[in-house]
Amino acid sequence: MEKRIDAPEVQQPPPFQSVAASAEDKECETDTAKNGKAVGFVLVHAGNCITIKQIFFIFLGAGYHSESKAKEYKHACKRACQKAIEKLKSGALAIDAVTAALVELEDSPFTNAGMGSNLNLSGEIECDASIMEGKSLHFGAVGALGGIKNPVLVANRLLSEAQKGKLSAGRIPPCFLVGRGAHQWALDHGIPPCPSDKMATKFSLSAYKRNKRKMELAEKVETEFIQTKRRRQSSENVSNLSTVAENDSGSLDTVGAIVIDHEGNVAAAVSSGGLAMKHPGRIGQAAHYGCGCWAENSGNLNPYSTAVSTSGCGEHLVRTMLARECSIALQSEDAHHALLETMQNKFISSPFLASEDCVLGGVIVLRCCRCTVESQDIQAFLVEFLWSHTTESMCVGYMSAQDGKAKTHISRLPPGAVAGQSLAIEGGVCRLGSPIN
Amino acid sequence: MEKRIDAPEVQQPPPFQSVAASAEDKECETDTAKNGKAVGFVLVHAGNCITIKQIFFIFLGAGYHSESKAKEYKHACKRACQKAIEKLKSGALAIDAVTAALVELEDSPFTNAGMGSNLNLSGEIECDASIMEGKSLHFGAVGALGGIKNPVLVANRLLSEAQKGKLSAGRIPPCFLVGRGAHQWALDHGIPPCPSDKMATKFSLSAYKRNKRKMELAEKVETEFIQTKRRRQSSENVSNLSTVAENDSGSLDTVGAIVIDHEGNVAAAVSSGGLAMKHPGRIGQAAHYGCGCWAENSGNLNPYSTAVSTSGCGEHLVRTMLARECSIALQSEDAHHALLETMQNKFISSPFLASEDCVLGGVIVLRCCRCTVESQDIQAFLVEFLWSHTTESMCVGYMSAQDGKAKTHISRLPPGAVAGQSLAIEGGVCRLGSPIN
Repeated sequence: MEKRIDAPEVQQPPPFQSVAASAEDKECETDTAKNGKAVGFVLVHAGNCITIKQIFFIFLGAGYHSESKAKEYKHACKRACQKAIEKLKSGALAIDAVTAALVELEDSPFTNAGMGSNLNLSGEIECDASIMEGKSLHFGAVGALGGIKNPVLVANRLLSEAQKGKLSAGRIPPCFLVGRGAHQWALDHGIPPCPSDKMATKFSLSAYKRNKRKMELAEKVETEFIQTKRRRQSSENVSNLSTVAENDSGSLDTVGAIVIDHEGNVAAAVSSGGLAMKHPGRIGQAAHYGCGCWAENSGNLNPYSTAVSTSGCGEHLVRTMLARECSIALQSEDAHHALLETMQNKFISSPFLASEDCVLGGVIVLRCCRCTVESQDIQAFLVEFLWSHTTESMCVGYMSAQDGKAKTHISRLPPGAVAGQSLAIEGGVCRLGSPIN
Repeated sequence: MEKRIDAPEVQQPPPFQSVAASAEDKECETDTAKNGKAVGFVLVHAGNCITIKQIFFIFLGAGYHSESKAKEYKHACKRACQKAIEKLKSGALAIDAVTAALVELEDSPFTNAGMGSNLNLSGEIECDASIMEGKSLHFGAVGALGGIKNPVLVANRLLSEAQKGKLSAGRIPPCFLVGRGAHQWALDHGIPPCPSDKMATKFSLSAYKRNKRKMELAEKVETEFIQTKRRRQSSENVSNLSTVAENDSGSLDTVGAIVIDHEGNVAAAVSSGGLAMKHPGRIGQAAHYGCGCWAENSGNLNPYSTAVSTSGCGEHLVRTMLARECSIALQSEDAHHALLETMQNKFISSPFLASEDCVLGGVIVLRCCRCTVESQDIQAFLVEFLWSHTTESMCVGYMSAQDGKAKTHISRLPPGAVAGQSLAIEGGVCRLGSPIN
C-alpha cells in the first residue's frame, strides 16, 4: 500500500518557504509479512549543503557539492539503507540496524563522519557521535574522539554497557565520554584504534589545506579592513573580503539514520566530524543529548513512537535542542504540519538564535503507530517519514524490508529561496506488517 | 515585605514524600531601592549528600557529610552569596554575579568543583561547568577540563566570546569545549593554568585512596560472589559485599548558583568535579545543555523569567534534562506545585530512568515577574525561589542586595524518607525594587 502525504497549502509569513512534495513512489506492501519475513524501515541522511555567498556568512566547507559528490552521497545512503535492512531481516532490533547504517555512512570517504571527516584547526580529526534506543530510552555518546574508525560503535557500546546496570562498587556507568578518555574506553572494550593517517583522506587533507589558506587570507583581509575602518577611510577592502570564498561552497555532511524494527521499536543515531577548522575539543550537536538524535517508543503519554536525526550547524542545533523538539511536536495530529511549525518557530525563528541571520540545519524524522489489519496474525505499523532542511540541499535515502533496493533523493530548496531563512519539507507514508509470533 | 510559600497538603502516591516548609524568615524590603541602590537576588547550592546503605546503591563519595563539613558548606554558600551581591551592587549584571558566586564555591576545598574536586579512576581531576544567560540565551560549557582552577571562568568566557559573533572567515564560535582543547583555549584566552598538585586537596586525595581500596575490595568480593553464584551455592558473600561501604556516605557536592539582577535579567551556572572514580573523559550534567543549568528571561511566550541549577547524579540529570524541564514547568501558575510535580513525574518517576531504583538529584530554581509598586520611579520584581532534592540533604544559601548577610540552610529529607525515592521541597518569596533610571 502506498500513500503520499498530502501537501497542504500552508500560508506562511515571508521569508519561509515550504516545499511540500511527495517522496518518490514507494511501495510498502504487507504481503511479505504474510510470508513470515521480518519487516522494518530505515531513513538515512548523508549530505547537507549550502553555498557560501559571503565570507561572513559561514565557513564550514569540506568540499564542493558537485554532481559527482551528490552521486557518492546517494551511493553511501543506498548502502547504509541496505545494511540496516539486512540487519532487520536477520532479526536484529532497531538499535543494531541503525548502528549498521551509521557504520556504512562513516566508512564513506565522502561524508564528514568517521574516516574522511573534517580536520580541526590543529589538523586532527575529532569526531562526535550518539545513539538512542526508543525502547529503553538509553543514550550513548562520544565527543572529540580521535583515532577510532567508527565513533558510532563506541556510542553504541556505551549504551549497551549502561543497560547492564551498575559498575563495580555500585558506580554509575557513563553515557557520554570525550577525548582521550573516550579513546581509552573504546580500546578497553575491544574497539581497535585507527591510525590518524588512515582517518584522513586525500579529500579531507586537501580541504584542510585550502581552508587554512583561506582562513589566513581572511584574517589578513579582516585585519586590514578593521585598520581601514579605524582610519575612517572608505571600506574598499570589503569587496576583496567577500571574494575570498565567493565561489566556493560548504558542506555539513553529518550523517544519521532512524529505524523502526519488526517489534515497532525505534532507534536513532548521528555521527559527525564537526565543522571544518573547528577548535580542538569542540563538541557539536552529534554528541549532545536531545540535539543530535532522539528515539522514543510510544508509551502512556505518547501515542506515537518517534525517531529523529539532525545535521547542520552544531551550535544552532544544540541551542534549539532540535531533535527533541521535533520528537515532541510529532505527537500532535498532523506530522507534516508539526514538523513545518517546529522548523519555522523553534529553529529558523527560535529566540535562542535571535542573533543569527542564517540558521542552518536539517532533520530526518519518523513516527509510527500500530494500525489495524484484516488478519489477526499480523501486527501492522503506519510509518510517516519526513525530512526538512534550511540548507540548500540534503541527501536522504530510505528503504523498507519489503523493498528490493533503497530509494535516494537530493532534496533542494526551491529556486530563489535563501538558505538559512527558508526551508524545504518532504516525506512519505508506508504501512509495515509483521507476523505475530 | 516577607511572604512564605504556602505549603499545600499535596496528596501523593507512595513512596513520594513532600516536605513543604517555609524558608527561614527573610526580609526583602524595597526601601533600599528608594535610596537608589541596585538590587538583586542570589540563591546557591553547595552540598548534596546521600548515605550509602548498600554497596550496589551508589558510589559517589568524596567524604563523610559530617557536621563539620556541613559548616564548611554553609560558609562557602555564604561567601558565594556575598560575592554575587557585591557584584550586583557594583552594577554588574546577573551573568557576572553568578560567575562570582561560582568562583567562590569552586575555590572551597570542601566542594566537589574546581580545587578539591573528586579524582577520576586515573587519579586526575577533570571538571565540568556551564553557564547560561537569560537575556541573550547564550550558553557556554566546558567538560573534562583539567588544570584550570575555575572552570566556570572558561565557560563564562566561551559565552562572552560567542556573543561577539563569528570568528575569522565566518567560522561559528564554539559553545562547548572539552579536554585538552578546552584547556588550550583557556590558556589562549588568558586564563592561567593550575598545576595538578594544587587542584587536589588532602581531602580529595585521601578520598581517592579510600575509594580505590573499596573499589578493589568490591571488585574482588563481586567476582567471588559471581563465582559463588555460578557454583549454585548459597550467596553467603552478599552480606560481606554490603558491608564494604555500609557505614560510609557519599556526596555529590556539585555547586551552582542562580541570580536575578536589577534589570530583571536572570543567569544560572553549575560546576562539578563529577562522580568519584569516574572514567576519564566522562561528562556529567554540569556540562550538558539543558541539564546542569538553565536561564531564560521572560518573553512573548514566557510570562516569568526562570533560572535553574542542578546537582546530583549526572547521568540521571542528563537523561531527564532536569534543568530545562523545571524551567518549562515554572511557567505554570503555582511554582511550588509545578516543581513538586516535575521532581516527581519527570525525575523520580521519569520513564527515562525506569530501570533506576534510586534517582538522585537536587535543584535550586527561581522565577520572577514584574509587579506593581506605588511609586512610578520604581520597577519591582516578585521573586519566588525554591529548592528540592531527592538526596538526603542539600545545602543552600540565599541573599538579596538588601540583606546584610546571606542565609544558609541544610535541607533534609524527613526522618524515614528514602533517598532517591522521596523528595523535599522548600522555598520563599521576596519582592525586589529597583529605581528606574
